[in-house]
Amino acid sequence: MNGSYRAIWLTENETLEVIDQRSLPHRYDTMELHNTDETIYAIKEMVVRGAGTIGCVAAFGIYLAAKQAQDNAEALQVLASQIRESRPTAVNLMWAVDRMLSTLENSTNLVADARREAIAIVDEESERTQKIGKHGADIIEQLYNHYGHRTINLLTHCNAGWLAVINDGTALAPVYEAQRRGIDIHIWVDETRPRNQGASLTAWELEQAGIAHTIIADNTGGHLMQHGMVDLVITGADRVTRQGDTANKIGTYLKALAAAANNVPFYVALPASTFDFAIVDGVKEIEIEERSEDEVHFMHGLLDDGTTGRVRVTPEYSSALNIGFDVTPHHLITGLITERGVCEASLEAVEAMFEDLL
Amino acid sequence: MNGSYRAIWLTENETLEVIDQRSLPHRYDTMELHNTDETIYAIKEMVVRGAGTIGCVAAFGIYLAAKQAQDNAEALQVLASQIRESRPTAVNLMWAVDRMLSTLENSTNLVADARREAIAIVDEESERTQKIGKHGADIIEQLYNHYGHRTINLLTHCNAGWLAVINDGTALAPVYEAQRRGIDIHIWVDETRPRNQGASLTAWELEQAGIAHTIIADNTGGHLMQHGMVDLVITGADRVTRQGDTANKIGTYLKALAAAANNVPFYVALPASTFDFAIVDGVKEIEIEERSEDEVHFMHGLLDDGTTGRVRVTPEYSSALNIGFDVTPHHLITGLITERGVCEASLEAVEAMFEDLL
Repeated sequence: MNGSYRAIWLTENETLEVIDQRSLPHRYDTMELHNTDETIYAIKEMVVRGAGTIGCVAAFGIYLAAKQAQDNAEALQVLASQIRESRPTAVNLMWAVDRMLSTLENSTNLVADARREAIAIVDEESERTQKIGKHGADIIEQLYNHYGHRTINLLTHCNAGWLAVINDGTALAPVYEAQRRGIDIHIWVDETRPRNQGASLTAWELEQAGIAHTIIADNTGGHLMQHGMVDLVITGADRVTRQGDTANKIGTYLKALAAAANNVPFYVALPASTFDFAIVDGVKEIEIEERSEDEVHFMHGLLDDGTTGRVRVTPEYSSALNIGFDVTPHHLITGLITERGVCEASLEAVEAMFEDLL
Repeated sequence: MNGSYRAIWLTENETLEVIDQRSLPHRYDTMELHNTDETIYAIKEMVVRGAGTIGCVAAFGIYLAAKQAQDNAEALQVLASQIRESRPTAVNLMWAVDRMLSTLENSTNLVADARREAIAIVDEESERTQKIGKHGADIIEQLYNHYGHRTINLLTHCNAGWLAVINDGTALAPVYEAQRRGIDIHIWVDETRPRNQGASLTAWELEQAGIAHTIIADNTGGHLMQHGMVDLVITGADRVTRQGDTANKIGTYLKALAAAANNVPFYVALPASTFDFAIVDGVKEIEIEERSEDEVHFMHGLLDDGTTGRVRVTPEYSSALNIGFDVTPHHLITGLITERGVCEASLEAVEAMFEDLL
């Protein structure tokens, strides 16, 4: 089932199997999830990560919880609220749990209905990423034509590929679609400290797909933009407000500032499920997750002896702060690439395009 | 001799001993340099680094070369030009070599004169850092008084402390002086990928000095500035043009953009020897060093078994690009903290303050 590039799938025994993204790129491991505790572990410890994938795991987590609750609606509610709290910044997580619960509200067969709804969520998510890919690839193709078919250099931060959002990703969906269209494209991959999702996951995805790419330290993008070496930036999003302010992996904001200063188009790719229409001012209103300082102190990777391990990069007694996300204000964003098309990052444009969801 | 916080010193046998900065913060090692090859190795492999320290090592390198050349001026010229080419971005290296050679032009005792001049260069450099410290601390003290004596949060990038510039550093000289003045100060330390000079060297220096500090991923500074958690930024410089454009460790430019966007004062601290008055437009004219991509692929640090080693953080077949420096345009810089005082980052102000050196 994983040949089709899915990050998660149901096993024959009706458990959820997921790619353990912590082992990539050095080892390909999977993990089976059987219950709520294991679902929460997988989300919290970032066995799975990425807005869309977290949402899909949460949806199947409700299915596993329904089995665990033995069709008892009250017991399911308790398990669902535990899943809901496993990562505070992930709006897709809440969205998926809420949609599952609302579907199950009057259900007489929680397990069967949860299974059907979780599959529907994943299928819809997958379809949306195809559409995001098409709209984003149109932008890349325009640049490709504009520049006389020379290589288009696209910079991305963190991982918003098929590991992060089922099935084609968000930020990388336009890249995969551009490849299908035969556009000559090269990706600058921000390594994305402290967890290195760019160097480990995006680079791995691109390598699998045979797409030209170069890994850079997060510090490098400003210099590249200053020297005309970046044609556009596309990142994913963890939460986007009604006016287009975007919470994404820490460091996204710095790249948006550099893009604005150097007239490089800066796009955010997201399915509508990533919007949080209840809030407007992202800098003031989005709660930002603080994670363990050990993610700054230690770097994981492949040791010289071929096993995986870690090195401590900081002095023994120094402390560190690990902020998971930052917010890019909408005025720095050229456009939001959604399944409905490209939307200006403004209150008016978002309200107009997503009126039916408000 | 090293009790006084010097990064390099002459041994009793008249060789140059330097702290091996590659081993910090996990191990304190030193290395003895006896000749030109070893001097070049130490500079090229970053056993020693930092604009000022490189200049001082180069100065003593000429002394070692004079001994090696056995007082033969022509042989010395050959060795000197090899030293001069060991790191292209380091203007202090060229400055120090040129000053040594010009002093030795009519010398009848190359070895003795080279020794005297190298010591003079180090002593002058040391004095200059004290003055930079005083001028910079005045800025910190003003903020401290302005904010009613609450903790002042200063962000710095890379390492420009006493390991980098003899004796008090440049960017950190104001911090050490602020500590002496009893100002309550806390430092945000950018880890500074790919070589991690912040996490390994700046944090180590601050820990030695008992100064409160927190290590952050390079991606974090924008978020902190957006939320009022940074009162000022001070960085060092590798080369500063006549109009104040500043080449410094890759990533400095991104922090300057964030500082400008959030009204955070952004200062560059440097001795006059770091100016390159021959050039004006730093973005166009400063040659930027590209370093080995292995610095991106591998992270060095302390293994769980207590030895030092490295992990590979990228996929086996992905390539990386390692740009060593970037240029921050002068309009993003609040001021240049020099041994002569704080100078506006503009052609007029620099020419006025350093007229005698043009």
